[in-house]
Amino acid sequence: MQTAHNASIQEIGALPEDPQALAELAGQSMYERDAASQGLGATLDEISPGKATMSMTVKAHMLNGHKTCHGGFIFALADSTFAFACNSRNLTTVASGCTIDFLAPAFEGDRLIARASEYSLAGRTGIYDVHVSNQDGKPIAVFRGRSYRIKGNVVEPQQPAVNDEGRPPGA
Amino acid sequence: MQTAHNASIQEIGALPEDPQALAELAGQSMYERDAASQGLGATLDEISPGKATMSMTVKAHMLNGHKTCHGGFIFALADSTFAFACNSRNLTTVASGCTIDFLAPAFEGDRLIARASEYSLAGRTGIYDVHVSNQDGKPIAVFRGRSYRIKGNVVEPQQPAVNDEGRPPGA
Amino acid sequence: MQTAHNASIQEIGALPEDPQALAELAGQSMYERDAASQGLGATLDEISPGKATMSMTVKAHMLNGHKTCHGGFIFALADSTFAFACNSRNLTTVASGCTIDFLAPAFEGDRLIARASEYSLAGRTGIYDVHVSNQDGKPIAVFRGRSYRIKGNVVEPQQPAVNDEGRPPGA
Amino acid sequence: MQTAHNASIQEIGALPEDPQALAELAGQSMYERDAASQGLGATLDEISPGKATMSMTVKAHMLNGHKTCHGGFIFALADSTFAFACNSRNLTTVASGCTIDFLAPAFEGDRLIARASEYSLAGRTGIYDVHVSNQDGKPIAVFRGRSYRIKGNVVEPQQPAVNDEGRPPGA
Repeated sequence: MQTAHNASIQEIGALPEDPQALAELAGQSMYERDAASQGLGATLDEISPGKATMSMTVKAHMLNGHKTCHGGFIFALADSTFAFACNSRNLTTVASGCTIDFLAPAFEGDRLIARASEYSLAGRTGIYDVHVSNQDGKPIAVFRGRSYRIKGNVVEPQQPAVNDEGRPPGA
Repeated sequence: MQTAHNASIQEIGALPEDPQALAELAGQSMYERDAASQGLGATLDEISPGKATMSMTVKAHMLNGHKTCHGGFIFALADSTFAFACNSRNLTTVASGCTIDFLAPAFEGDRLIARASEYSLAGRTGIYDVHVSNQDGKPIAVFRGRSYRIKGNVVEPQQPAVNDEGRPPGA
Repeated sequence: MQTAHNASIQEIGALPEDPQALAELAGQSMYERDAASQGLGATLDEISPGKATMSMTVKAHMLNGHKTCHGGFIFALADSTFAFACNSRNLTTVASGCTIDFLAPAFEGDRLIARASEYSLAGRTGIYDVHVSNQDGKPIAVFRGRSYRIKGNVVEPQQPAVNDEGRPPGA
Repeated sequence: MQTAHNASIQEIGALPEDPQALAELAGQSMYERDAASQGLGATLDEISPGKATMSMTVKAHMLNGHKTCHGGFIFALADSTFAFACNSRNLTTVASGCTIDFLAPAFEGDRLIARASEYSLAGRTGIYDVHVSNQDGKPIAVFRGRSYRIKGNVVEPQQPAVNDEGRPPGA
């Protein structure tokens, strides 16, 4: 992800007013704390209000007994991308549920790209669509996530530490 | 998993006729080739025709920015358990889609138990329910998987090698 | 539905304390106002806290171009049963989303029975499973509903009129 | 729906080769036999290969106890639109499952418009998205359908009678 500022989030005082700068700050902050996405080797390539793009290479340890990428890792990439999109306004938001349909297998070495976008946001709840394709643009999976906004901000002004109060079910 | 025979699958000649013994053999064979489930630290605790139970401990690298288990790992455990249940009759079967609802967060050190059972099986398609709870029996997530049977067997008689022809979308 | 009291809901003063009597009262009240369920010919056969059973006969006007029951009517029966189950504690609750899987076709004259039960309830949100079978016990569809509790009661003490403030998305 | 020919389907000899003309013919034929969609007052406004648009006015008998449109009727409109889209290539196709999320309530007199489009089609299975909005363009529900192609054609050349062999689970 290209962030507007490369400042560490610890140095942030006031939050940016520009929605795009705020999305990038929230994304950077989430990613730094997100051991799961990092462990998958997933990168946050783009983030903007209501949207995010991540990508990940399928590695040997992600293969199932059929020598194709285990559905759980495809889901994890989609779910992470959903999480970045729904937290992109710096309001702490968690997954309440998701549906995924697998369209084609992914193989070792494939680069999977997941693009999440907000379809609706009303009150505390939102619906996000995530499309996962491979390096050739072939659709691999389609995912729909349901989000629920809880208390707190991804990055708090002046004290941008980890939010321990939000104890979300999912992502 | 307690298997009827501890023989390596390479030694298998004729397949067992007993459905329970066949389920255990298929489960053992799948697990040995399933780098993804092994990498998650998930164990196959029980398998029988149409059913499977797996468990997994939530580790630090599975935590998201909220310090709770990333939904992708909970999904992966449920999805693996679904895969073992729907392949338990030794007929190669893949996931076509899944729905998960997250009910409560899981934390580092929690032991998650996933129990999959077949709700329906008609022709090539099946529906499986997976319930994930923690070590205290608290429901963490509920999952429904749709399966599709393709050609081939999990363990082929005489030549129980990896089935390279089944190229499944998911699990 | 057998209600504890056959009194019209207009006559209700204090609400019953017994959960079963309250469920029956809420069910009776909802059903009287529910033109959609009545129009489907669906009957509320049983209601108890967190559970409901409804049934409906497939009529000619419910058939699609394949001469089987249109999935929308099977869904409608399941969705109504879900609505009665999730309002059975007399707290106004609406559907936020549902997933249905069709297992076998239903034909004209079939009597469909839908049984809803609460799988989880935490805060304002719940998960309900509904199983739809025909008169022979054959599974026709399986449904999962997500509920969200809003303000208000199904039957208000002293003034059990229609609740106009709850403007729910779905059932 | 505007059809290329207003000829009754009984008069059809050879099927049109043009995909758009074939979609319109299949749509007209399905609609004429679809008592369910007709009974809902749903009209087929547009059909093309992989796509369909239908609309329906919310009537008094569609209201639930909250005086909003019962989710089952919103689902039925979406499900019908999905059925027309996935049969638009004149290959008999049925629903295997669907997921709907309700975004905002619909009221008596609202005109609901459902737009279905094919997201993927591989072998016998497809994924379709249906978006339902009201007369003001406000999103009411979002639906995802999974389709499965069976034997037969919507309109058979020379003998365009009702296909009794396709006995689909859903729509």
